[in-house]
Amino acid sequence: MRTRPLKVALLGCGVVGSEVARIMTTHADDLAARIGAPVELAGVAVRRPDKVREGIDPALITTDATALVKRGDIDVVVEVIGGIEPARTLITTAFEHGASVVSANKALLAQDGAALHAAAERSGRDLYYEAAVAGAIPLIRPLRESLAGDKVNRVLGIVNGTTNFILDKMDSTGAGYQEALDEATALGYAEADPTADVEGFDAAAKAAILAGIAFHTRVRLDDVHREGMTEVTASDFASAKQMGCTIKLLAICERAADGASVTARVHPAMIPLSHPLASVRGAYNAVFVESEAAGRLMFYGPGAGGSPTASAVLGDLVAVCRNRLDGATGPGESAYAALPVSPMGDVVTRYHISLDVADKPGVLAQVATVFAEHGVSIDTVRQQGKDQSSSRSGEAGTEGEASLVVVTHRATDAALGGTVEALRKLDTVRGVASIMRVEGE
Amino acid sequence: MRTRPLKVALLGCGVVGSEVARIMTTHADDLAARIGAPVELAGVAVRRPDKVREGIDPALITTDATALVKRGDIDVVVEVIGGIEPARTLITTAFEHGASVVSANKALLAQDGAALHAAAERSGRDLYYEAAVAGAIPLIRPLRESLAGDKVNRVLGIVNGTTNFILDKMDSTGAGYQEALDEATALGYAEADPTADVEGFDAAAKAAILAGIAFHTRVRLDDVHREGMTEVTASDFASAKQMGCTIKLLAICERAADGASVTARVHPAMIPLSHPLASVRGAYNAVFVESEAAGRLMFYGPGAGGSPTASAVLGDLVAVCRNRLDGATGPGESAYAALPVSPMGDVVTRYHISLDVADKPGVLAQVATVFAEHGVSIDTVRQQGKDQSSSRSGEAGTEGEASLVVVTHRATDAALGGTVEALRKLDTVRGVASIMRVEGE
Ligand SMILES: NC(=O)c1ccc[n+]([C@@H]2O[C@H](COP(=O)([O-])OP(=O)(O)OC[C@H]3O[C@@H](n4cnc5c(N)ncnc54)[C@H](OP(=O)(O)O)[C@@H]3O)[C@@H](O)[C@H]2O)c1
Ligand SMILES: NC(=O)c1ccc[n+]([C@@H]2O[C@H](COP(=O)([O-])OP(=O)(O)OC[C@H]3O[C@@H](n4cnc5c(N)ncnc54)[C@H](OP(=O)(O)O)[C@@H]3O)[C@@H](O)[C@H]2O)c1
Repeated sequence: MRTRPLKVALLGCGVVGSEVARIMTTHADDLAARIGAPVELAGVAVRRPDKVREGIDPALITTDATALVKRGDIDVVVEVIGGIEPARTLITTAFEHGASVVSANKALLAQDGAALHAAAERSGRDLYYEAAVAGAIPLIRPLRESLAGDKVNRVLGIVNGTTNFILDKMDSTGAGYQEALDEATALGYAEADPTADVEGFDAAAKAAILAGIAFHTRVRLDDVHREGMTEVTASDFASAKQMGCTIKLLAICERAADGASVTARVHPAMIPLSHPLASVRGAYNAVFVESEAAGRLMFYGPGAGGSPTASAVLGDLVAVCRNRLDGATGPGESAYAALPVSPMGDVVTRYHISLDVADKPGVLAQVATVFAEHGVSIDTVRQQGKDQSSSRSGEAGTEGEASLVVVTHRATDAALGGTVEALRKLDTVRGVASIMRVEGE
Repeated sequence: MRTRPLKVALLGCGVVGSEVARIMTTHADDLAARIGAPVELAGVAVRRPDKVREGIDPALITTDATALVKRGDIDVVVEVIGGIEPARTLITTAFEHGASVVSANKALLAQDGAALHAAAERSGRDLYYEAAVAGAIPLIRPLRESLAGDKVNRVLGIVNGTTNFILDKMDSTGAGYQEALDEATALGYAEADPTADVEGFDAAAKAAILAGIAFHTRVRLDDVHREGMTEVTASDFASAKQMGCTIKLLAICERAADGASVTARVHPAMIPLSHPLASVRGAYNAVFVESEAAGRLMFYGPGAGGSPTASAVLGDLVAVCRNRLDGATGPGESAYAALPVSPMGDVVTRYHISLDVADKPGVLAQVATVFAEHGVSIDTVRQQGKDQSSSRSGEAGTEGEASLVVVTHRATDAALGGTVEALRKLDTVRGVASIMRVEGE
């Protein structure tokens, strides 16, 4: 074993960074044995230098992250600041000064992954980011390495713990969205401003990263169709139950049936209770991968939290350090397939649509005609008298109203969109109460 | 990209090997792009040279596997013959002649892993074997690399598809062991001689491999306590149901509470229906990993089959080929922790014990005294009149017999063994109908 230590600069010492520092200290011997050389914390960049940081030598603390990454004796930079800047510039500077980089920064990777990978390659260094997707769950490495000899066709995942906690609460208690969100906030599962989670931005960043790796194709954040879950109601859960389903916020990356293009999207969807993702409770994450030879694989675990995320960061740290000692690099960006990313309109799936309609003869025929005209084939229709409790309008139901629940066969999103637009124009259709995709069948 | 191809020798072209060859041919371009150089099938060793092998150039076929691995121009040897010899000698010879090795051979790895790793290290080559445990499920790589910065405390897995199929059948249909085995055989899930599966030999080999990697300690096949599942009865499933449990054949690798030793074992056990492993159906495999920082992770997928297993082999092939091009090697054996492997007697768990007892006052007190004397604390006791249908003896129940079901708190296997021995000596205890461990709580 080499005795001269590898030097690590830690950028950020918050929820994740403080756990990385703690484990590096308490498990120093194990890390040294696994790497083949000791690792030393050479500096810790933070914003507030005076904050007490347990277990960290105050002499290591600096507010000058740039100077730290430029020191020249740093082997690995661990970036756990988050956000775009200064993280991006710091990572690029780290590569220019000969360091490898481990990051947990999904936002940055989803937006600028290609440029960062290029910077890593120019400098002959590694860029690893297992922690950026689904926290502790090994996912990037299995996709990038274990399945390197296979062809991934689909990735379907619950990759945001906050929204899964909220949806699970709604499902199990019948609570509405706001009530469940309040509980998530009180318990620390949701941040004061939950926008990034509930509007699907966080999941979309992860979908972009996953799709890129799974399909060997650059997928940018802008390529990911994104719908949040703030409009999911208790009544949607009631409909889901009638279908033998529950509702999850899913990140879905798919290869088109002809293999010639891919799509990536995030939205709430019904999935059958029999699907392994349906039983993912609380803030847990799980990702389902369908590949040609391996078949259906699932990876499950805690998707966030300081210590689980630090576990993923440290796994990368060990790999990157070993590569340094070997004078080698791990797999870099693999975007050779360069498949086009199709728009949401091309996505093919099934739909569950609830319509408020006039309660008179001929309505079903009218509605069915609209579906047929747009090439959307109907699987089942359920017609029922208006149920006040599931009304979204809050107004008392008008006499003579009924509801019509249509479940379609597989159709493109564009065809469904056209259908819904035409339905809205029917005067017997009073409103489209909800549209929910049905996945995982 | 390098244009000179890397040369691969395939040893064995059966269920797994034929799929490896097929994918190497049909996905040659993808493999080349991911490796950075084309890979070429340079020879295929088999036993029966005249068998028609679709898609394989007959000129590549040879029965002289030794000559093939000695050729000197082979970069990677893929060993999918199975068994101890000639596989062991062929792999060692391959290293001596400068090749890296990918193997799916759990029996060999469990028996001689240390010697093979040493041979790989002497030659500066790689030995990879993701396919040896749980087929397509990425498990070795996540444990060895993703969790390299963490401390694994427990691995709990369903790692044999045949036995899971049988137990799942018994659970869902109420069938007995023989009936379920017959169905598994008819459907091709069980081999003509199912001993390796149903007696737990296959799972024990996997447990040895997993424990070795998880604990950075050499664990030999002989270190693994092994009990098969041929004695699990319909009545055990009925008892499990009453406990809110099902029965699975589990491979369990544990670090002792004081961290100073480890254990590895394979046996049927009750697990709560709420545990993620309880819902693993049919021939699927799943492995639950508990680690200090990451928490609870689960990996799920097809544990066998030609094409899933080939997926794992090819993932390794890509990694090993990249290492060759880099002039590097991946992680070798990590056995630095060298923890002692404790015997089964030291294992601590809970137990579900069914006793046939005389139906008279004072029996419970006698039985409870025996447990207390052996330091095994009782959680619950259920006393009931003898249920003929759950009798194992086949004889009509004697009048005046009752059954007593005891569920214990956690105790060592040694203490439980002593308790059972003493119970058998009580003349009010007519028989010990079953003893089943309770895991996953
Ligand atoms: N938290 C999770 O569960 C989780 C899970 C997966 C991935 N991640 C990712 O991990 C990263 C870090 O997340 P976190 O939860 O640990 O964030 P956090 O608790 O907010 O910590 C951020 C750290 O960065 C420091 N920092 C902020 N701006 C800085 C600057 N300009 N220069 C130097 N240091 C600066 C902060 O310093 P002060 O301490 O002085 O404020 C703090 O130590 C993010 O990319 C996040 O997406 C987090
Ligand atoms: N099958 C699975 O689902 C699975 C899953 C995980 C791991 N594995 C492992 O993968 C390995 C292969 O399993 P398999 O199911 O593919 O076995 P298999 O179908 O029995 O194939 C064995 C192959 O090895 C050849 N062979 C046997 N003895 C040989 C010798 N002395 N010299 C050269 N070739 C010889 C056979 O040749 P012929 O074709 O001429 O008979 C055959 O092609 C085993 O280690 C197994 O444990 C299998």
